[in-house]
Amino acid sequence: MKKYILPDMTWPEIKEALKTASIAIVPVGAQEQHGYHIAEGCDSYRAKEFSALLAEKCFPKVVVTPTINFGVSPHHMDFPGTISLRPDTFIALLEDVVSSLKQHGLKKFLFINAHGGNSAPLGVAAETLARRYNVEIAHTKFVDASKKTLSKEIDSKYFGHACEREISECLYLAPGIVRKDLIEKGDMNDDAFALKYMKSDFVKVVYQFNEITNNGNIGDGTKGSYELGEKIIQEALTNIAEFIEDFSSTNR
Amino acid sequence: MKKYILPDMTWPEIKEALKTASIAIVPVGAQEQHGYHIAEGCDSYRAKEFSALLAEKCFPKVVVTPTINFGVSPHHMDFPGTISLRPDTFIALLEDVVSSLKQHGLKKFLFINAHGGNSAPLGVAAETLARRYNVEIAHTKFVDASKKTLSKEIDSKYFGHACEREISECLYLAPGIVRKDLIEKGDMNDDAFALKYMKSDFVKVVYQFNEITNNGNIGDGTKGSYELGEKIIQEALTNIAEFIEDFSSTNR
Amino acid sequence: MKKYILPDMTWPEIKEALKTASIAIVPVGAQEQHGYHIAEGCDSYRAKEFSALLAEKCFPKVVVTPTINFGVSPHHMDFPGTISLRPDTFIALLEDVVSSLKQHGLKKFLFINAHGGNSAPLGVAAETLARRYNVEIAHTKFVDASKKTLSKEIDSKYFGHACEREISECLYLAPGIVRKDLIEKGDMNDDAFALKYMKSDFVKVVYQFNEITNNGNIGDGTKGSYELGEKIIQEALTNIAEFIEDFSSTNR
Amino acid sequence: MKKYILPDMTWPEIKEALKTASIAIVPVGAQEQHGYHIAEGCDSYRAKEFSALLAEKCFPKVVVTPTINFGVSPHHMDFPGTISLRPDTFIALLEDVVSSLKQHGLKKFLFINAHGGNSAPLGVAAETLARRYNVEIAHTKFVDASKKTLSKEIDSKYFGHACEREISECLYLAPGIVRKDLIEKGDMNDDAFALKYMKSDFVKVVYQFNEITNNGNIGDGTKGSYELGEKIIQEALTNIAEFIEDFSSTNR
Amino acid sequence: MKKYILPDMTWPEIKEALKTASIAIVPVGAQEQHGYHIAEGCDSYRAKEFSALLAEKCFPKVVVTPTINFGVSPHHMDFPGTISLRPDTFIALLEDVVSSLKQHGLKKFLFINAHGGNSAPLGVAAETLARRYNVEIAHTKFVDASKKTLSKEIDSKYFGHACEREISECLYLAPGIVRKDLIEKGDMNDDAFALKYMKSDFVKVVYQFNEITNNGNIGDGTKGSYELGEKIIQEALTNIAEFIEDFSSTNR
Amino acid sequence: MKKYILPDMTWPEIKEALKTASIAIVPVGAQEQHGYHIAEGCDSYRAKEFSALLAEKCFPKVVVTPTINFGVSPHHMDFPGTISLRPDTFIALLEDVVSSLKQHGLKKFLFINAHGGNSAPLGVAAETLARRYNVEIAHTKFVDASKKTLSKEIDSKYFGHACEREISECLYLAPGIVRKDLIEKGDMNDDAFALKYMKSDFVKVVYQFNEITNNGNIGDGTKGSYELGEKIIQEALTNIAEFIEDFSSTNR
Repeated sequence: MKKYILPDMTWPEIKEALKTASIAIVPVGAQEQHGYHIAEGCDSYRAKEFSALLAEKCFPKVVVTPTINFGVSPHHMDFPGTISLRPDTFIALLEDVVSSLKQHGLKKFLFINAHGGNSAPLGVAAETLARRYNVEIAHTKFVDASKKTLSKEIDSKYFGHACEREISECLYLAPGIVRKDLIEKGDMNDDAFALKYMKSDFVKVVYQFNEITNNGNIGDGTKGSYELGEKIIQEALTNIAEFIEDFSSTNR
Repeated sequence: MKKYILPDMTWPEIKEALKTASIAIVPVGAQEQHGYHIAEGCDSYRAKEFSALLAEKCFPKVVVTPTINFGVSPHHMDFPGTISLRPDTFIALLEDVVSSLKQHGLKKFLFINAHGGNSAPLGVAAETLARRYNVEIAHTKFVDASKKTLSKEIDSKYFGHACEREISECLYLAPGIVRKDLIEKGDMNDDAFALKYMKSDFVKVVYQFNEITNNGNIGDGTKGSYELGEKIIQEALTNIAEFIEDFSSTNR
Repeated sequence: MKKYILPDMTWPEIKEALKTASIAIVPVGAQEQHGYHIAEGCDSYRAKEFSALLAEKCFPKVVVTPTINFGVSPHHMDFPGTISLRPDTFIALLEDVVSSLKQHGLKKFLFINAHGGNSAPLGVAAETLARRYNVEIAHTKFVDASKKTLSKEIDSKYFGHACEREISECLYLAPGIVRKDLIEKGDMNDDAFALKYMKSDFVKVVYQFNEITNNGNIGDGTKGSYELGEKIIQEALTNIAEFIEDFSSTNR
Repeated sequence: MKKYILPDMTWPEIKEALKTASIAIVPVGAQEQHGYHIAEGCDSYRAKEFSALLAEKCFPKVVVTPTINFGVSPHHMDFPGTISLRPDTFIALLEDVVSSLKQHGLKKFLFINAHGGNSAPLGVAAETLARRYNVEIAHTKFVDASKKTLSKEIDSKYFGHACEREISECLYLAPGIVRKDLIEKGDMNDDAFALKYMKSDFVKVVYQFNEITNNGNIGDGTKGSYELGEKIIQEALTNIAEFIEDFSSTNR
Repeated sequence: MKKYILPDMTWPEIKEALKTASIAIVPVGAQEQHGYHIAEGCDSYRAKEFSALLAEKCFPKVVVTPTINFGVSPHHMDFPGTISLRPDTFIALLEDVVSSLKQHGLKKFLFINAHGGNSAPLGVAAETLARRYNVEIAHTKFVDASKKTLSKEIDSKYFGHACEREISECLYLAPGIVRKDLIEKGDMNDDAFALKYMKSDFVKVVYQFNEITNNGNIGDGTKGSYELGEKIIQEALTNIAEFIEDFSSTNR
Repeated sequence: MKKYILPDMTWPEIKEALKTASIAIVPVGAQEQHGYHIAEGCDSYRAKEFSALLAEKCFPKVVVTPTINFGVSPHHMDFPGTISLRPDTFIALLEDVVSSLKQHGLKKFLFINAHGGNSAPLGVAAETLARRYNVEIAHTKFVDASKKTLSKEIDSKYFGHACEREISECLYLAPGIVRKDLIEKGDMNDDAFALKYMKSDFVKVVYQFNEITNNGNIGDGTKGSYELGEKIIQEALTNIAEFIEDFSSTNR
């Protein structure tokens, strides 16, 4: 056994693992439309697979919980199949994961998030739960740890959902959920008010995704590739593993 | 495509599927100790795999949601690795699944449950949500649909958790999570008050699982087999598929 | 004083009683239609009177709280007069009873339930509160403790609500709420989908009571009698008193 | 039948009653210490019996729900046997009563309250529920409707709990819960800060009842009598019946 | 610095102040219509300014928190601009103020309330929070501490909202929010059912303010004056300061 | 009247204003330590004053609500005087503001936020409330609209709390809360784990402010000035006013 994935371990194995592992990694996904070319479990698959790679890399310092298969996705509800949790439900779910594992002795948590819509509720969850349970919590939207690759390799004006970045990640992490013959560019509504402020650096506007794109994706998926996915994921793995090294050894 | 598994489908595929599918199957599992011989994701794996088989059998009348990977398992919290949701969290999660899919036109739900501790909260969820959202909801602890096989093939006085029945199901549905070389009988505390009333037909007593068993399992796992698993699962599939046939055609 | 009924005692009397009584009995009823022949307080009256008999039989080991006069009865809401608590309200009410009495030193609770619709929320309440308040909780739908009599004396295909069993109980416990001149059989909708699955041993379907019966009752009330009521209640009293004996002496 | 008490009626009888009755009376009590001389169900018994008399007087314009057997009594928790609801629980319970009866066509509610500690939460409940359910709600601490008698007949400096007023009411409404041989004056802590501000007309101070009295009652119970009880109750009945006349005929 | 107003102090200044100050004053206002002649912040301004005067008078025994700028005002929602908190929100807000300051060592709280609609929820908040956080809480609708002046100086049959009393207070405390050229009498609906019971001493009826007045005020504002305001406020200051003296020195 | 500030207006004035104003500006502050040199109401004062300037600039298109005087500040709780709302309370408060004003016809909301700790809960509030109430919501941490000035004028490695930026804003907006004679640099804990990740662009770590600074501030307040404040505020006003122009005219 080279990685500690809790749902795949028995309780005596977990008991043993907790002698070295001090951090619980919680993969946080979503069930949400990703255009014509990625299946809706995209974020859950990416969170789960990325966490597994991270667990291998950081063995034996971390354990991985079951994946949170649902996220906060109200902006995608106009597309069939999307399931969105209320923020309260999402936070309660994370609370129960944290409080349960605290009882088993874990005091450090890293939420590995694959979906932008989860970021604000994750922020609320982290701030609240760390203090309520007297534990340390960190969270990352993991592709944010791949800044160099993204700035060098991607030049679409708008990207970040079912785009070349995400297709590449999927081709590397979970190729079965990509419809390779259907990959296409985002069919954008260029004049949309929401699109204008989507990337604003000072104001955030609530919008529905179908205000800005007709097919549900943005960017240019045709530029995605396994190779780009590998670069993105490996850079993120390196940076987050480095953080984990630091996080596991600090004693606040 | 022979079965409709929502996280593995794109939104246009789901849109198409909803033309024939009228029932959403929701696999409901748990992260919970199952002795020395089954990994803790046992109930989630069984719920997921059983639901997939059911979806094939009932194609194209049902769709399957992502698996609920966590259940209500406070009675197992004394064993490392168990994660237990508060009933409120569990019900809220099911509510968001139901309310989201209702928005996409689904009005019938079948919760496929693999964990006894989920039954009471599922009952509350079903009664509440069916009326709140004006939908039809049914739920089953799926092995209950295998009464004939169980009464004929199993003779342990106490069984129902990490026992010959559950090991057999796993060998058939998810063999990778069984530790075949570690299978053993339940190490029961024969005099426990909790054990005496565990199977009472008139009174229910709240207890912790380690009151009744030291290794976390009950029954006699050494009697489990792939063949027994096949019989259990196939009988349950037949009975539940028959119910689905009825459920999908009724119009209340 | 031969029984300890808390609303009928002063605080110094209660203080004295708690020197021997270690179990709080909580009678749990409902306000809910029971056909043309039983008044709607049926379940509350039965829970209250049964608990009083039990308190006499188990004197001085138990005290009885005021009756919970409302239950979870959404399936009866189509009949005038039914009042249904949301499960959250019902559980909160039980929580406050438990937490208050815990402050007075009581650590064992037995919920005496008279209404099937309360069972799932009672299960959730028991599991949650026992752990939250570090107390022992058991619960029983008390007629379940009368299995022998029921299997020997009742032969209606469907029974369990405003039927010969319940009329008999009322004639024994609270005859004033029976309209003897109006007793009749259930006017069943024989083809109802809900009726088909009402007694399923593997799937539970949410339904409204008026889907299965037009007059609100099932079974054959005309077969009810004081004598049958006496048998049912006495068997249940014996079995539950025996449990109380065990429950009061165990020290987990 | 001269009064409409819902738990004592069948659904067809209730259906008939609702042709003339437009107001639901909800008796609101408490389980709470009342000194050495009144049993703890005092407020519940008074609320129930007063409501029944009112229902007779106002027949056929009102129906009476089952009694709310628990109130908000944290200030009495230091005395054995008291059970106190959290205000949230109390309000939720009233909400479910109101929302259920609204479904049966009732649009006017009068809460008949017997316990001062319920007044603030009843105020919150009334204001909230009237608007949430678009119904009319009024509430009364019913002895407040007996101002003339009280000002003429009672001269204790402090009264209002297990005092001559309350004993008199009990002797008239529910004599069985009075311990006549144990009636005594309040054993007051004359210097208590809480006592000084208990009757302030401008500031309300949170206190525990045992700060101000050692035996749990105040006033001078020895001055209570059946005759005084009759005067108090009859004046209150007259005034509240007059209000009901007005309330039932107004159409806002 | 002659008064301790927390939002106007730095943390080292507050640290110093807490050496002598043992009571936190919390000004509680509302955003709510007050007729043609007072701006809607009326209650917030009055609560804030009164608290500041009180803090000067009771220096250095009290600190003043930021003002609660919103209250519970559903009965005024038919007039533009009114903002009403749900009671749960209002109580939660007070809870967070209390629990935060408890962490800084404060154990006594006095809510200075300027709005009648806040009284019931304040009562619930005080009773609940005092016990939950083991602190002492008192609350006052501060004009209630001016009984002598009010009974001597005001003779309108109905007063208490945007009337001569409130205009006078504003002229003394916050003259900028009075529209002196628009002061007028309440334009009452004399026959309203709500008006009849508005001042009942035994029954409380839920009503909307526009049922009883067309312009939003009652009483006779033209009789208001700075001088009357001074009398009202000074009497209230004297009485409440006296209570504070007592409250700060008591040690329960 | 050149700006519409709701607490300073009567209901007929507000009724008139709502003929032209379509956006409600909600100033969102905090009560929170800001070192030795700024009073704790800093964020509330800045939010309020900035909103007033914005209201003048955008007259007559916007109205301003009363200020939210408390924010989400758990990370500052180790410094005396800080009051922190739970995120649920904070969101509930915003919900009641939005739902109340929606009833008066307002359908567009702009939250003007002055405190970084409010950002995640504001994000949750905006996403949730916009959909629940079918309104448009945008929110800004207003200094983010001053990017040019900040990048040109500020060169401290760490800034953002009680630093030169914030002191400058205060000197411009609310000079009375600055202790000019006490301005000092942040007394940083250079080796703190929390400090290392405070500005991470990929991982967020929950920390307490006193982990990173001993005096409660960061940056170099001595570089602050009225002139810098003017530049910051004017740039932000220009950018946000431009957004308001767009927001008020769009019709989604």
